[in-house]
Amino acid sequence: MNSFSRITEQDLAWLRAELGGRVFSGEEISSDYDHDEMTEYGHFMPEAVVLAESTEDVSRVLAYCSRRGIPVTPRGAGTGLCGGCVPIAGGIVLSTERMKKVLEVDTANMTATVEPGVLLMEFPKALEGTGLFYPPDPGEKTATMGGNAMTNAGGMRAVRYGVTRDYVLGMEVVLASGEVIHLGGKTVKTSSGYSLIDLMIGSEGTLGILTGLTVKLVPEPKVNLSLLMPFDDLDACIGAVPRVLGCGCDPTAVEFMEREVISCAETYLGKQFPDTGAGAYLLVRLDGPGREALQPAIDTLTDLALSLGAKDVLLADTEERKDSIWNARGAFLEAIKGSTTTMDECDVVVPRDAIPVFVHRMMAIGKEAGVRIRSFGHAGDGNLHIYVCRDQLSDADWQEKVTSVMNQLYAEARLLRGEVSGEHGIGHAKKEFLARSVGDTQMALMRGIKAVFDPRGILNPGKIVS
Amino acid sequence: MNSFSRITEQDLAWLRAELGGRVFSGEEISSDYDHDEMTEYGHFMPEAVVLAESTEDVSRVLAYCSRRGIPVTPRGAGTGLCGGCVPIAGGIVLSTERMKKVLEVDTANMTATVEPGVLLMEFPKALEGTGLFYPPDPGEKTATMGGNAMTNAGGMRAVRYGVTRDYVLGMEVVLASGEVIHLGGKTVKTSSGYSLIDLMIGSEGTLGILTGLTVKLVPEPKVNLSLLMPFDDLDACIGAVPRVLGCGCDPTAVEFMEREVISCAETYLGKQFPDTGAGAYLLVRLDGPGREALQPAIDTLTDLALSLGAKDVLLADTEERKDSIWNARGAFLEAIKGSTTTMDECDVVVPRDAIPVFVHRMMAIGKEAGVRIRSFGHAGDGNLHIYVCRDQLSDADWQEKVTSVMNQLYAEARLLRGEVSGEHGIGHAKKEFLARSVGDTQMALMRGIKAVFDPRGILNPGKIVS
Repeated sequence: MNSFSRITEQDLAWLRAELGGRVFSGEEISSDYDHDEMTEYGHFMPEAVVLAESTEDVSRVLAYCSRRGIPVTPRGAGTGLCGGCVPIAGGIVLSTERMKKVLEVDTANMTATVEPGVLLMEFPKALEGTGLFYPPDPGEKTATMGGNAMTNAGGMRAVRYGVTRDYVLGMEVVLASGEVIHLGGKTVKTSSGYSLIDLMIGSEGTLGILTGLTVKLVPEPKVNLSLLMPFDDLDACIGAVPRVLGCGCDPTAVEFMEREVISCAETYLGKQFPDTGAGAYLLVRLDGPGREALQPAIDTLTDLALSLGAKDVLLADTEERKDSIWNARGAFLEAIKGSTTTMDECDVVVPRDAIPVFVHRMMAIGKEAGVRIRSFGHAGDGNLHIYVCRDQLSDADWQEKVTSVMNQLYAEARLLRGEVSGEHGIGHAKKEFLARSVGDTQMALMRGIKAVFDPRGILNPGKIVS
Repeated sequence: MNSFSRITEQDLAWLRAELGGRVFSGEEISSDYDHDEMTEYGHFMPEAVVLAESTEDVSRVLAYCSRRGIPVTPRGAGTGLCGGCVPIAGGIVLSTERMKKVLEVDTANMTATVEPGVLLMEFPKALEGTGLFYPPDPGEKTATMGGNAMTNAGGMRAVRYGVTRDYVLGMEVVLASGEVIHLGGKTVKTSSGYSLIDLMIGSEGTLGILTGLTVKLVPEPKVNLSLLMPFDDLDACIGAVPRVLGCGCDPTAVEFMEREVISCAETYLGKQFPDTGAGAYLLVRLDGPGREALQPAIDTLTDLALSLGAKDVLLADTEERKDSIWNARGAFLEAIKGSTTTMDECDVVVPRDAIPVFVHRMMAIGKEAGVRIRSFGHAGDGNLHIYVCRDQLSDADWQEKVTSVMNQLYAEARLLRGEVSGEHGIGHAKKEFLARSVGDTQMALMRGIKAVFDPRGILNPGKIVS
């Protein structure tokens, strides 16, 4: 990592003169800013926190810090899972949490322009009555849209609609120098030089700080329903996925869930899941213009599932029924968290047909190491969320086992030509695994790109590349 | 541009020793290699042409040329429209036209892996019987899939399915040094560091040479049909586009065509268009699982079009009827070419709702300059193809007028927050317009990226950045 300047009294005086009461230092800083959702990856207190309210704020702070060599770590809602917004090199945490205005909903172009701090759960309100919706659907609804763009977050509906990258049309970005650039806009296609916007998406604030975002909207499907397919075991369940994806029914979501994880969620929510008799479930969601228009897809999927060994196919087309299934699915992360003392997580993505092999290997690795592993995920995307649970292991045991298990899981993903992260990103926690996965040449290219955008390395140091 | 070595007898001897009869120099070189489809942008003869047959061939040639400082311009089928594959700095043209094997069709993962020289028109044969198809649909079917990836080609079906970028999952690329890297693979989502694959897509061979491509396939829609909507004039026609896109019918293609351009095509094809009584037409294509499933969309679109001033709505659901419309649409470029002595073209993309304003300004610019302009394009994408026709203008007149008109058209697109190219790319012909459009800072970032990948600048010099 580059060598940086510590923040002095003079720096604080400058910040306070420019940004008034939106600068915090020392004891004033809430401990919220020293971690993200994975406290397991350590606590790192910033030297100062700045709550930006405008592009101009971000620009002035970056220009100043560039001159002074002070690290700046951008932060949205802090809901990441790999330490991406954590100031591991000290310096300033620059939060965009107050930049939460929806600036425009343009129905003619089917776009919306927002400040980066708009929460995923708040955004739909701005679209009410337009007939339009924003498909990206990461599990964490208190995340910001800016954070989603900068990690290329995925979510449930990615099978049909794609991930955040597929919806980002325009960005306003402040470069390390403080200069403001505009990438893309409201155009829906382009072949105009290197795709700087695609480079920025998923760069986790290491190449620039996002201050504005234009996203694509699509006509809202009028109806959605889900099919829950219980199978005897995970093999049969996941084995059905390629056929489900290939049958022409255009599913919105295809999730797999195991009985053990559902049980965790039942305990956590205090509510029973609509079916109790199966080892594993495939959950398929369909969107469409109306109930009747979906009937052929329901019929096709039902016949297909039964022919592939499903014990039954439960149709969830009332709000109550849908909630009973999807609330359980939505609670998995918290439920697993609540079931153990501490945990580590892994978000690999593999080719879809490699999921059964990977899951088997994962189970064997856990068994051999003597740790409990729970997993669920986006079967339709080949993206698994895997939780290695500490339970009652001693410090030394846990450290040894979790290191070994993680090394093995990532090695297995690599063997299957998978990638380190399907949707959570790299941050500082997965840097080493990224380097092993893509190799020296690609890491050198990434470092070269980083140096082009941020020659002094002040932007979110120690993340992705370092 | 960097300073390069000329090819010596010694270099030719090395190339012939390594690649045998697949090396051509001097008089042996076909004049095909000195231009692309736009001969208007000049003829540039390479010093040597190499027909690569493998990744290894490409790697050895690049490693050698890197050491020697010899420029290498990659070439697919040479169907580009902005001089992207033309060796303006001399050196070697490295053609991948012989690398045309479909290596794998993986129905479980719904992917195909091909060599870069596979022609767009040949590829569907490899998918026969799988029920899968490859949606990108650029007008030029004799283009290569590799060329499409390296220019991020678009095409008719982009409204519903997106552009080539949206279908590229994996790439094998040879870097300037000769080193071979693999980007992505068969995984359908990723948040694993900077998106090098997205940087490579649309880079026109300036960052690396593509030697393998893995693309995403989707279930083939069983039925398609088209609706032809005649309007009195272009205003009413294009004015209907936002409503057509927003009505929830998920059109595959939304094209606009003017009477004058249709007349060109009628003359060129010697066949009459199915309708003759309107000034402008909107052509909407729908894909679906069956004829009945599309009926609600047909009804909705018909009612909508009539309410927005369409004189009629003609349904084309037989092959004959569809061909009579789409063959005319497909012939536009050649028909306009055939109607004039020479021409220049412009491929701007603007926000969709800016098309009417842009088209009006375009007409005014042509009228004022006294040149004939013809246009058609992807109304659903905001992407126009504009042809400035020389007709009988003198050399001096033409040069003056075409320069002035092009400057004005690109300035207008910029004002409307459009971009230089929707799908054709930059090559050397549109470099200056790109620089004006994105500004110095973004050009400097692109140059910086170029230097990271290709420090000596031997890869396709003089294109995009220089």
